[in-house]
Amino acid sequence: MAALSLRSPPLSSSLHHLRRRHNAAAPLILRTPSRSISIKALSSPSPALTQDDLKKLAADKAVEYVRSGMVLGLGTGSTAAFVVAKLGELVNSGQLKDIVGVPTSKRTQEQAAALGIPLSILDDHPKLDLAIDGADEVDPNLDLVKGRGGALLREKMVEAASDKFVVVVDESKLVAGLGGSGLAMPVEVVQFCWKYNLTRLQDLFKEEGCEARLRLDGGKPYVTDNMNYIVDLYFKTPIRDSEAAGREISKFEGVVEHGLFLNMTTAVIIAGKDGVSVKTK
Amino acid sequence: MAALSLRSPPLSSSLHHLRRRHNAAAPLILRTPSRSISIKALSSPSPALTQDDLKKLAADKAVEYVRSGMVLGLGTGSTAAFVVAKLGELVNSGQLKDIVGVPTSKRTQEQAAALGIPLSILDDHPKLDLAIDGADEVDPNLDLVKGRGGALLREKMVEAASDKFVVVVDESKLVAGLGGSGLAMPVEVVQFCWKYNLTRLQDLFKEEGCEARLRLDGGKPYVTDNMNYIVDLYFKTPIRDSEAAGREISKFEGVVEHGLFLNMTTAVIIAGKDGVSVKTK
Repeated sequence: MAALSLRSPPLSSSLHHLRRRHNAAAPLILRTPSRSISIKALSSPSPALTQDDLKKLAADKAVEYVRSGMVLGLGTGSTAAFVVAKLGELVNSGQLKDIVGVPTSKRTQEQAAALGIPLSILDDHPKLDLAIDGADEVDPNLDLVKGRGGALLREKMVEAASDKFVVVVDESKLVAGLGGSGLAMPVEVVQFCWKYNLTRLQDLFKEEGCEARLRLDGGKPYVTDNMNYIVDLYFKTPIRDSEAAGREISKFEGVVEHGLFLNMTTAVIIAGKDGVSVKTK
Repeated sequence: MAALSLRSPPLSSSLHHLRRRHNAAAPLILRTPSRSISIKALSSPSPALTQDDLKKLAADKAVEYVRSGMVLGLGTGSTAAFVVAKLGELVNSGQLKDIVGVPTSKRTQEQAAALGIPLSILDDHPKLDLAIDGADEVDPNLDLVKGRGGALLREKMVEAASDKFVVVVDESKLVAGLGGSGLAMPVEVVQFCWKYNLTRLQDLFKEEGCEARLRLDGGKPYVTDNMNYIVDLYFKTPIRDSEAAGREISKFEGVVEHGLFLNMTTAVIIAGKDGVSVKTK
């Protein structure tokens, strides 16, 4: 296995990229406090970075943790797509050698294959060095809500099998408590009697004021890669005890997986208007 | 909800049936010890009862727990099929009124529908009065291995939702410890990276000398009603701690359900060469 450090990888490539694309005149300050690294764009007034600029900057930062020879979990979603694109560049330029990617969805598999990244599956590579993926929510404990993209089961399988798990988000994903964004916390359930499980899930979170809805896709139930449905939970107040919540959700027969990713994260790379920072526990 | 007692239902119908089918001259003795009821055929030499005779006798006994107005979980398998057949008789003769059956498989649904038993699903009837089903193994604590028929998930969903759960087996299913029969303990897993989960399951039970095999059907992987695969676990020695085993299996991402049915059974009806007995905890 390749050695991996999650402290202070070089920021040069991201910086150069930002400087080139953004504004050559804007001053950039690199700060390295004890447990985080930040880039700050202090120009005033500054041409605003788009959401995609920020995602790409954070994705490039994440890819700096990758070393030749690694087995890599490849996430799913718009941020993860920037990670995969960058990996493709580095593989094709010869800067990364002998990496193997384990994709977490058919979409990611197709993207990575098109870029010529060698691919495998958990059956053949049951232990990964590093997984990189986006997230829908990140709490102060670096616990996550994931799965709004619908790939939560494959993501959790791959990321739980990985030695390190680096999460890439923009700062809008930071929450004080999971469920706190008011957006969906997905639960993958078998199609059989999904309404029964939807009701049980909603009742489980009475205190949080939970509304449970079957995810739809063009008026029909959304079907996951595993032929299951997704019940999205919307909370009025954050989940009080996410450990207990995860345990109770898993106990329901017919629940295949849930979007609470607990005690899995090694580091979170956060892209904000003020730059990119890295949080570790 | 209909009232339900699990003590001393009338045995007359089973006895009459046995007497008619079996041997009018064979003496039958009804014993009612404190926590069990037995019928013993003491004729010597006695024409042997077939396995199906025994299953039918036990199934008839189980149906005596059913009262008009009940919502009933209908199991899957050869013994459960005798239960459903008997229910059909009683519904059609008017002896049972206003029952609603919740089938645990497509097979059972078809059988019950053909017999004119009114059917529903958990979505519409989330609370059941009584479920009746067979089992593959029964231990002294009345914990079970189920699912060799492939319907473990739906069986567990329905039976966990039931106020009482009566199990019907022949005495060959009694084991000192779960897994002790040396036959399959099934685990339903998503198709994605099934081999990865097969390996993890086998490794979990190293001390029991476990062999894990993908269930096949005509050379191809067996596919459940929920579009998943089944990994069958074969143990050299019984599972040492079935509670812990169930917990650990459920933690694996991609495991949908397992065949350990723990702390669910109200009573077990056992058909043996010496007659029928009922065990409760």
